[in-house]
Amino acid sequence: MSILVVGSVAFDSVETPFGKVEEVLGGSGTYFSASASFFSEVQLVAVVGEDFPQVHFDFFRSRKVDLGGLMQVPGKTFRWKGRYGYDLNEAHTLETHLNVFESFRPAIPPAWKKADYLFLANIHPGLQMEVLKNVESPRLVACDTMNFWIEKERPALLKLLPKVDILIINEGETRQLGEEANLIKAARKVLALGPRTLVVKRGEYGVLMFQEHSVFAAPAYPLEEVYDPTGAGDTFAGGFMGYLASTHNQTEAGIRQAIIFGSIMASFAVEDFSLERMKRLDYGEIEGRFRKYRLLTEFKGLD
Amino acid sequence: MSILVVGSVAFDSVETPFGKVEEVLGGSGTYFSASASFFSEVQLVAVVGEDFPQVHFDFFRSRKVDLGGLMQVPGKTFRWKGRYGYDLNEAHTLETHLNVFESFRPAIPPAWKKADYLFLANIHPGLQMEVLKNVESPRLVACDTMNFWIEKERPALLKLLPKVDILIINEGETRQLGEEANLIKAARKVLALGPRTLVVKRGEYGVLMFQEHSVFAAPAYPLEEVYDPTGAGDTFAGGFMGYLASTHNQTEAGIRQAIIFGSIMASFAVEDFSLERMKRLDYGEIEGRFRKYRLLTEFKGLD
Repeated sequence: MSILVVGSVAFDSVETPFGKVEEVLGGSGTYFSASASFFSEVQLVAVVGEDFPQVHFDFFRSRKVDLGGLMQVPGKTFRWKGRYGYDLNEAHTLETHLNVFESFRPAIPPAWKKADYLFLANIHPGLQMEVLKNVESPRLVACDTMNFWIEKERPALLKLLPKVDILIINEGETRQLGEEANLIKAARKVLALGPRTLVVKRGEYGVLMFQEHSVFAAPAYPLEEVYDPTGAGDTFAGGFMGYLASTHNQTEAGIRQAIIFGSIMASFAVEDFSLERMKRLDYGEIEGRFRKYRLLTEFKGLD
Repeated sequence: MSILVVGSVAFDSVETPFGKVEEVLGGSGTYFSASASFFSEVQLVAVVGEDFPQVHFDFFRSRKVDLGGLMQVPGKTFRWKGRYGYDLNEAHTLETHLNVFESFRPAIPPAWKKADYLFLANIHPGLQMEVLKNVESPRLVACDTMNFWIEKERPALLKLLPKVDILIINEGETRQLGEEANLIKAARKVLALGPRTLVVKRGEYGVLMFQEHSVFAAPAYPLEEVYDPTGAGDTFAGGFMGYLASTHNQTEAGIRQAIIFGSIMASFAVEDFSLERMKRLDYGEIEGRFRKYRLLTEFKGLD
């Protein structure tokens, strides 16, 4: 089963306490599709400029990501520059140049309109809605958003949420969207806005998943080497959706397992800059880490 | 099996976004012993001033805490005043008046020197060592400390740690003691300083437990109502040690279960100010929440 993802492809310049990279491959669509590609077929809708080099096209192809929806247009590719301190949970944006991404109007290739799984990465909620209308009857729709849209485009976002099955956002966004300081209460309020499932990303603290009658907590896989958290959230979403699409299991148990796979994928992504770790990852490593993860949280019940 | 705890008994004045209390019962020894008392017999060594009222003595007795080591001396009881913002993970200390606690020299009643379980709450590491020398051959010693001692009394702390089985500190203290920004690496360095087990408290994110060859992650029990996080760490330690003392099971599996009981106790403590929630808690509620907790983290393995 294939996943259609609409998001950004970018050049990132990133500085962390552990190193510095300039104009490396990044973007929500990139991280998502690379990660999902370990589990499912992926179709990427995004835009790049004339400066996007062959080596990056080659990377997507090596991951078998279908680029039939990746437009290359006159102008420069989206650029983001950020810095992380020792608190790797928080990115400090230094520069954002939207470039060709500013006028991005996602065009879904006709053959892709029957996509079963759809991930709407963080773009204007109006555009997310447009994409959603162009996909005929997806089995599962997940989306991300950010503080800027929650503040500036709340009405558009509130129109979108009832049409979304799974919302994947971070802690601060959950509090902001739910207008409530307590995370659990905020999550309940967000569920009431439409999505059947809310996945709250908490960086190095892991993930909480909320449904009407249950909460699931998945701690992050503990890592001794974290070089660059950029893209961890989209890599999580990619592993999560990729696994769901590969199993067709949308029960709560299926979603819980998918969350662990998403977490595992994110744990690999942050071990190196850009997509470097994804380039040298194989499926055996993913399963191996999943098995180790189980030992991380196991404990005996009461007799 | 009974637990000997040495710590503080205090009057706390606390302000959170959800309310405000003045001069209520608090202190590390208080929270620890109230919590541990749900599982084991507890012997408390601490000091209070002449202003300590009968109603608080009565509370300890209602929890069957043995007060044979609680000295009442001329002067005023330790007072702490603090404030929490919406980020309930961080206390802002407004005032500290050590009063009679300033010259506290823990005196272990002779009959208690054969204690099997010993918890050294956060006091000067030199005093912690003195207490340790006065307990003949404890089966298990756990201790807490804080940023101030790590910075100012590092040599005394480093002498103590090889004699401690389980160190229970927070994330920031782990990084500071391990002199390392990455928490997992910092934890490894702390283990190398002596304790066989390190328990890292992360507030609303739960607990990580480190031993030489394993890591255990326990998310916090999700709560819709958190009124006052004061004492959560000592309440955790009390539930943890209390459960260990009740089972005599110091295997890794036993310690993992104890961590869940500690987390459950902390989750109750923060639901009200001071010891109010402990006053109306019963063991059935604790077991009930333990069973719910299991559902929080369960997921299916690979076939």
